[in-house]
Amino acid sequence: MIYKVTSKDNRRVVEAAKLKAIKYQKDSGLYLVEGFHLLEMAVKQNRVDYLFAINPIENQNVDQYIVNECIIRKLAASKNPQGVVAVCKIAKPLALSSLRLLYLDDISDPGNMGTILRTALAFGYRDIILSPNCVSPYNDKAISASQGAIFALNLVEMAHEEIISLHNQGYKLIVTSLKDSVDLSNLTKKDKYVVIVGNESRGVNSRLLEASDDKVKINISGIDSLNVAVATGIVLYELNRK
Amino acid sequence: MIYKVTSKDNRRVVEAAKLKAIKYQKDSGLYLVEGFHLLEMAVKQNRVDYLFAINPIENQNVDQYIVNECIIRKLAASKNPQGVVAVCKIAKPLALSSLRLLYLDDISDPGNMGTILRTALAFGYRDIILSPNCVSPYNDKAISASQGAIFALNLVEMAHEEIISLHNQGYKLIVTSLKDSVDLSNLTKKDKYVVIVGNESRGVNSRLLEASDDKVKINISGIDSLNVAVATGIVLYELNRK
Repeated sequence: MIYKVTSKDNRRVVEAAKLKAIKYQKDSGLYLVEGFHLLEMAVKQNRVDYLFAINPIENQNVDQYIVNECIIRKLAASKNPQGVVAVCKIAKPLALSSLRLLYLDDISDPGNMGTILRTALAFGYRDIILSPNCVSPYNDKAISASQGAIFALNLVEMAHEEIISLHNQGYKLIVTSLKDSVDLSNLTKKDKYVVIVGNESRGVNSRLLEASDDKVKINISGIDSLNVAVATGIVLYELNRK
Repeated sequence: MIYKVTSKDNRRVVEAAKLKAIKYQKDSGLYLVEGFHLLEMAVKQNRVDYLFAINPIENQNVDQYIVNECIIRKLAASKNPQGVVAVCKIAKPLALSSLRLLYLDDISDPGNMGTILRTALAFGYRDIILSPNCVSPYNDKAISASQGAIFALNLVEMAHEEIISLHNQGYKLIVTSLKDSVDLSNLTKKDKYVVIVGNESRGVNSRLLEASDDKVKINISGIDSLNVAVATGIVLYELNRK
């Protein structure tokens, strides 16, 4: 259905605007997505609940609220929003079904979060596990940096202990670490593993380091470390490399 | 020398505040750097001209203007600035002296710019060439993402034609491209080359593509492309790989 909404105080508008806060996203299971490119990808993965647009959008089977630019600005996070903001459903976490998993241990920067999700999807990962203290992947900057990858991935939250217990299902734990680690290009390939990357400042949690099967480092010099999204990309590339 | 400054209208403060605009950076050859970690790296590379701080900083041989928090906020770009902002000198470009060069063709996002500089330094690159339309590497977000790499690199500006003419000095041009390209891991290693990475939306310029010696792609699926900083990291990693 298509509805015309002119007031900023309209119930739907007020409700949607609340979704800018992570707390309301968690409570409602909904989040906001802006722009036509991301909308298209969200639609493909059937993640859109309803949307706000300045002009009606063709071939959409969700409710559309046609609004003015002022309302779009109220809902959008960017300074110069395109004429569409969609309300999307947070997908229910599914059971892990892949042989190759990626665990994000307290990633704190939303741009890094989104870029890592984009990179993981590109390298064929489908199950991404987040530690409870990660920045929300539904943060607007994370969604934007993910380039829509967020809609195609199964995102699951797990504590460190649960990751360690994946050993019982035959997964090897591969962590990135600057200490006591082997050169990434010398890593013996495995069939069933979890790649674990850590917080921007602190790196991977010490319990996970202790419980890991392989510690790998990327051979660098001249600067202390790589950006975590770049490092993740290099590790996933190397693991896919024949 | 250490000076006490209490007025926001002090000449030094007013001059420094102008450096938030790229235009004034170009005119003056100066730019702003905030925070203690970046200051330390800028000092190491002898890039600091003078600085503003809430408390005097020990062992500095540049002029220090001791100011209040309000003035620091006026000069800083971040919302919660640390108590120091340094005015740094843009280093004069030096002649290219490396066998391995990196060309950034119209990189537009400052975060990507900084992350690429950080990554390039980590993989042993010292000469980074920027196309005239790149975002300024002296943008505050770029400096921050570079984690100080910007102070250690020789940054040179060159147009496409100049890059193509590097052929005359024996450099091979390696471009990233999704079309007509070979898998990166199958690239034959070279001794003297320029890696060319392109704009976030448009990729590498067509003249450079035509003039290139090798077109390489990273084998991905599920999404159109990788983030350019991630892709650059993977290419530089592979080229360093034995």
